Amino acid sequence: MRDLQQNLPIAVFDSGLGGLTVLKVLAQRFPQENFLYLGDTARLPYGSKSATTIRKYLNQNIAYLKSKQVKAIVIACNSASSVIIGEKFDSTIPIYNVIQPGALKALDVTRNKKIGVIGTRATVKGKAYAGEILRLEPLAEVFQQACPLFVPLVEEGWTDDPITNLIAYRYIQPLVQTGIDTLILGCTHYPILRDTIQKVTGSGIQLVDSAVTVSELIKSDMDDHVILPSSLTERQIHIHTTDVADHFQTIANQIMSPLSISRLELVDL
Amino acid sequence: MRDLQQNLPIAVFDSGLGGLTVLKVLAQRFPQENFLYLGDTARLPYGSKSATTIRKYLNQNIAYLKSKQVKAIVIACNSASSVIIGEKFDSTIPIYNVIQPGALKALDVTRNKKIGVIGTRATVKGKAYAGEILRLEPLAEVFQQACPLFVPLVEEGWTDDPITNLIAYRYIQPLVQTGIDTLILGCTHYPILRDTIQKVTGSGIQLVDSAVTVSELIKSDMDDHVILPSSLTERQIHIHTTDVADHFQTIANQIMSPLSISRLELVDL
Repeated sequence: MRDLQQNLPIAVFDSGLGGLTVLKVLAQRFPQENFLYLGDTARLPYGSKSATTIRKYLNQNIAYLKSKQVKAIVIACNSASSVIIGEKFDSTIPIYNVIQPGALKALDVTRNKKIGVIGTRATVKGKAYAGEILRLEPLAEVFQQACPLFVPLVEEGWTDDPITNLIAYRYIQPLVQTGIDTLILGCTHYPILRDTIQKVTGSGIQLVDSAVTVSELIKSDMDDHVILPSSLTERQIHIHTTDVADHFQTIANQIMSPLSISRLELVDL
Repeated sequence: MRDLQQNLPIAVFDSGLGGLTVLKVLAQRFPQENFLYLGDTARLPYGSKSATTIRKYLNQNIAYLKSKQVKAIVIACNSASSVIIGEKFDSTIPIYNVIQPGALKALDVTRNKKIGVIGTRATVKGKAYAGEILRLEPLAEVFQQACPLFVPLVEEGWTDDPITNLIAYRYIQPLVQTGIDTLILGCTHYPILRDTIQKVTGSGIQLVDSAVTVSELIKSDMDDHVILPSSLTERQIHIHTTDVADHFQTIANQIMSPLSISRLELVDL
């Protein structure tokens, strides 16, 4: 039983394909673990929707992943993480979000305690990063900016593009003016625009991406046997989506490269 | 009975708020009719999703509107219209789409039979406008361009903006080069960007917006008693949405002005 359980996959959930940036970091960090990714592509994006609707979808997604027998769930979607932050799930398996690790990492990195957060409208409106940062460090100052065009720009493939530079400048320059020394990339798509964003901030501002911190948290929980680690020689990476987009597989392979996807499957939630 | 039926509302459906541009044209043209608008804002946008998923959502939306007792349904969403074009609905009430009227209008306007179409990825991929235009006029030439950033730009409120001009230029300039003299605005959001688009095309290219043509079709069906006309002195405009976005009501009022919305209601499909 213990053997069986330890080989169960770690689940990663996102509304679309952005969470693959988190899956990739985890899959590289844990090369002997199985992974199951769920992208709710039929209802994306979450970032422009209300907390009530996001919560409804998230509950369905978590129920689906539990029915698939997984040993942990990582909610990679910042918009979804921000509506459930602080909630105690009635869950027999650990459920991780990206907000707490991102907040911790930002506080670890900052010297002047001025931290910027960029994300979707839902993430910024929910103020989850700000809440978490201020809970941990009441003297910190948090400056937020919603960047609703970043996700469609990534999906259009305009990642290294003068138009994207202009839009990034408009969104982020006011944050730079506040004197922040740390900027949280509060959406799974944003690491794909890392170079563009760093051009606007300059090298004096450190960019924080939650994925790495989530992987450190999981490693620590494995050491403590909160999660039982696998030692598979041929692990599997499965991706489930709720809609088939023609270009999903292409973009998924690009993001995951050099890792390969074992199976891609359409599911109906 | 006849009296009751003629006072039933005309329903207008769209995935989000873009279809309000169609509702407004209809409500102004038919000031003595009740209207019921349904925006499936919990699952928008449709334009990036597969035909299978769009069809599933559309069937649920049509069933909902029929349960509300309406005398006709206008599918204002181009992405939804494009997946059901040519289908015979098993329906006791007329169901209109925006593709056929748009195609008819474009053929009426063009002199050189070179017609451009801009729309979402789903609309462009479905080639519904091209199919309809070529069915009516085999000698026509149709040039298409997906403009996935236009909807998020409208939702960001950057309608009169140098960045939007740059993006419009990149999308539309190649179409202008083909020699088209007519351009179909194949998405309900695009009339909001009409001035920006016309700047790129110049005045030599005529822009076609389906809403006006749909209203002409409905007028003709009223004259033929396919739809029974109302003669209400105080008509109602009701808007139902599947999600509550904070800025929905503001933008809805802006688009509908000077008409006023009688009631805004959240529904669960």
